[in-house]
Amino acid sequence: MFTVRALASRVNHHLLKSQVASLGLLHTTASCNGAKVAVVLSGCGVYDGTEIHEASAVLVHLSRGGAEVQMFAPDVNQMHVIDHSKGQPAEKETRNVLAESARIARGNISDLAKLNASNHDAVIFPGGFGAAKNLLCCISPVLAAKVLKNVEVTVGHEDEEGGKWPYAGTAQAITALGAKHAVKEVTEAHVDQKNKVVTSPAFMCETKLHLIFDGIGAMVKDVLKLSGK
Amino acid sequence: MFTVRALASRVNHHLLKSQVASLGLLHTTASCNGAKVAVVLSGCGVYDGTEIHEASAVLVHLSRGGAEVQMFAPDVNQMHVIDHSKGQPAEKETRNVLAESARIARGNISDLAKLNASNHDAVIFPGGFGAAKNLLCCISPVLAAKVLKNVEVTVGHEDEEGGKWPYAGTAQAITALGAKHAVKEVTEAHVDQKNKVVTSPAFMCETKLHLIFDGIGAMVKDVLKLSGK
Repeated sequence: MFTVRALASRVNHHLLKSQVASLGLLHTTASCNGAKVAVVLSGCGVYDGTEIHEASAVLVHLSRGGAEVQMFAPDVNQMHVIDHSKGQPAEKETRNVLAESARIARGNISDLAKLNASNHDAVIFPGGFGAAKNLLCCISPVLAAKVLKNVEVTVGHEDEEGGKWPYAGTAQAITALGAKHAVKEVTEAHVDQKNKVVTSPAFMCETKLHLIFDGIGAMVKDVLKLSGK
Repeated sequence: MFTVRALASRVNHHLLKSQVASLGLLHTTASCNGAKVAVVLSGCGVYDGTEIHEASAVLVHLSRGGAEVQMFAPDVNQMHVIDHSKGQPAEKETRNVLAESARIARGNISDLAKLNASNHDAVIFPGGFGAAKNLLCCISPVLAAKVLKNVEVTVGHEDEEGGKWPYAGTAQAITALGAKHAVKEVTEAHVDQKNKVVTSPAFMCETKLHLIFDGIGAMVKDVLKLSGK
């Protein structure tokens, strides 16, 4: 069984590099109707927290899939606050990750410290810079790299293709760390059956929102399939 | 042609009462490929701003419908800041509506003062308390009531039905103001053809998120249909 800390390292590691919605499947329990899924948020807003539309799409697809969802976020201050209208840090301002995440969760959220891996079939980390900025402060990237050895993930394409994949360099970074990269379209998800990790490029691609929404739908579908519920 | 001020009063009026995603259609222009739709935000979070999942659903459905979207929010301070993890006001904290709305818009948003009605075929106001708290401070509710005389909208059902429709009293408030209320399910939208106003109950109903998502989808579909694009 994974501890919360190991779980967090397991999944945050490639969020740091990819900003994609991703998953680490824990184990299955046979007693409930739908899959029990934990969604871990890291604030509210792409540049210093969770990417809002990825989180919302994850929740819509989990709802449609009949999953039982619980949301979590760490009760710590954000690394910093970005004024999203200017794309610059707001000086002298502090915000709490749990309180900001509660905006996405409509108040229905718990401290990440209370997440007990044995209560969930799967965990999903929506993307956004907050996943790297606010979650990784409490884990060891070294441990994360160790746990994710040989993991296979996707961040989309491996070339920028004239700006369509502006973060394409991320794929090389993944390979450099010893993990494998699978080339996928934005509407697709990639399943690492062995490690039970599902990923989708999401906002790594400059494209229409509904295509990102559909890619996250494919990811959630694979997550629920893996959970066997 | 409606001015921005008249436009705002026209639609915010029933947001005050209903917290639903709603629309006021302006006019049609024949020269572009897709409908040009303005989405007006009022912050980021259900209790002091725009309801995040309503906004995200609106944007997903507009994207799928091929609309050309521009987002706007007023460059004013929020009425107050609610700590969404506690459901209580955060004392001594101020936030700017445009800067917070930019979290939903991923930075791609303009001052509401720059909204020129002649550039858009339709305008959508997602719900959330911020629509009432942050937008109405700059308009006249009296003017709004006048503009919306005899408008027909839906906020869902007219009875609480054991908690399924916790804000059912809103329907009576609408009737008391001289407007008409149409009973609809959460997955449906109501079209007032005469006033060109489309509404959907959204979070007025205590239900699954994907049903709210589908209701907003129905609303956006009707909006795009009315725009004739």
